[in-house]
Amino acid sequence: MHDPSRARRRKAPHATEGDPPMLIVGERINATRSRIRLALEDRDERYIYKEAQKQLKAGADYLDVNAGADPAKEAESLVWLTQVLLRHTTAPLCLDSASPEALAAALEAYSGAQVMINSVSAEKEKLENVLPLVAKYDAEVVALAMADTGLPTTVDDRIEIVGKLVEAIQKEGIPLERVYFDPCIQPASTSQEQPSIALESVRRVKAEFPGIKAVCGLSNVSFGLPFRALLNRSFMVMMLHAGADAAIIDPTEPGMVPAIVASEALLGVDEWCMKYLEAARGGTLDGD
Amino acid sequence: MHDPSRARRRKAPHATEGDPPMLIVGERINATRSRIRLALEDRDERYIYKEAQKQLKAGADYLDVNAGADPAKEAESLVWLTQVLLRHTTAPLCLDSASPEALAAALEAYSGAQVMINSVSAEKEKLENVLPLVAKYDAEVVALAMADTGLPTTVDDRIEIVGKLVEAIQKEGIPLERVYFDPCIQPASTSQEQPSIALESVRRVKAEFPGIKAVCGLSNVSFGLPFRALLNRSFMVMMLHAGADAAIIDPTEPGMVPAIVASEALLGVDEWCMKYLEAARGGTLDGD
Repeated sequence: MHDPSRARRRKAPHATEGDPPMLIVGERINATRSRIRLALEDRDERYIYKEAQKQLKAGADYLDVNAGADPAKEAESLVWLTQVLLRHTTAPLCLDSASPEALAAALEAYSGAQVMINSVSAEKEKLENVLPLVAKYDAEVVALAMADTGLPTTVDDRIEIVGKLVEAIQKEGIPLERVYFDPCIQPASTSQEQPSIALESVRRVKAEFPGIKAVCGLSNVSFGLPFRALLNRSFMVMMLHAGADAAIIDPTEPGMVPAIVASEALLGVDEWCMKYLEAARGGTLDGD
Repeated sequence: MHDPSRARRRKAPHATEGDPPMLIVGERINATRSRIRLALEDRDERYIYKEAQKQLKAGADYLDVNAGADPAKEAESLVWLTQVLLRHTTAPLCLDSASPEALAAALEAYSGAQVMINSVSAEKEKLENVLPLVAKYDAEVVALAMADTGLPTTVDDRIEIVGKLVEAIQKEGIPLERVYFDPCIQPASTSQEQPSIALESVRRVKAEFPGIKAVCGLSNVSFGLPFRALLNRSFMVMMLHAGADAAIIDPTEPGMVPAIVASEALLGVDEWCMKYLEAARGGTLDGD
């Protein structure tokens, strides 16, 4: 469950006094979105910059950057995105790719103080090719509860996979504090039990692997259902209660950041509700 | 944590197929609200009836009825409210009074199929005078985590109080399934730790006293803070995740019922998200 000591977690380098303790990773710069793909093809620096600004203004601490899945272009595109964002913001990036080559190229081009890699998993190829990058660049890393045997089904499956991952991570000398366990959330519309299992996995993993953090890439939970923003922010509140330290979300989604700020006040991680009161005065909670 | 078997809980007698499994007790007919006090003084049956209809339309399963704290008038007023509501709705009532005499009078006047008593506690006077009424009328009962020593501070305090309560309840032959543990939620503005403690108490009490249910009278959590509806519905989502079976709330508060319906879809208690989809089609989730 919720651990009040999270209030003292290391803040993002650019975090100000008023930032909430939960790390918000803005997910909008992702080439699976058609408008981003277009901007990438056109090398439309201005559009990328505006997407970054919009997310930071809405409350993002980090920016996720995904350049799509075309092996012929991904590394070059990810490097371009990285350079564009370095020119225009000081926010840490979360480099998001299934390709170790693309990640290596972008990391080489990156000069920010802090970087997150999205993602490693217990798959052999990831352990061999991505973990060394995490170690080399002192990166934070999203660790998916996924193995060569495929997506896990139960909480115990996930604990077993994380056990293997943690062993490999520690062998590389990477501190667990830099690891964000991602339970691989599946849609409520296709599996009734999976969202509860993801929540319980976060609680169990944090209890059984002290120091490890948890992240949720949560918009998947609402796939195939109407009023997705309502489901996403409700699940976000549950994830915070279960102990999540970070979320990969669209911070511009209606009601999402207010739900996070309110949850932090309720869970005692926002001392004297100061950040909540500041958000209320600043108009961030309006419409709620 | 959340127990998927709750999906099979006994429904309120008037519940239809589309009702969510979480019991919503509408809290608006309460003489601490000045407009209700006025309606009570004027014996304004029409106003009370409209308050009932408004809450039932918004999703209330039960109606809480509180006639104020004036010892000279309370029993008579509670009987009058009970009779008015019996004339106009079939919803079960939740008779809410600190006075065993007022409760006894209202129960005597009540002829509904199902009734809830709000509340008993581990205070000697309550155990002696309210528990026999619960047994006599086959009532459901809200059981406050409160003893003669005052409000509890820790989770363990609450477990100890519930232990005493459960012993007394079982001695009266009352099944635990009719008991709704209430953790006595205190405001986030005055105690940073108390909302988390209330959540953990619900989880622990449900794990340690199998069969017992949990309820939250939750609007207290936001006392003294702005944007109370946002805090209330966020805490409601956490309480559902912690295992709450019922909530004493204002179902007309913006976003509250949508947050409950979404949570039930996410927690797997709404089979195939049917109720969620029905609410979406019916316009209940609009604005979210």
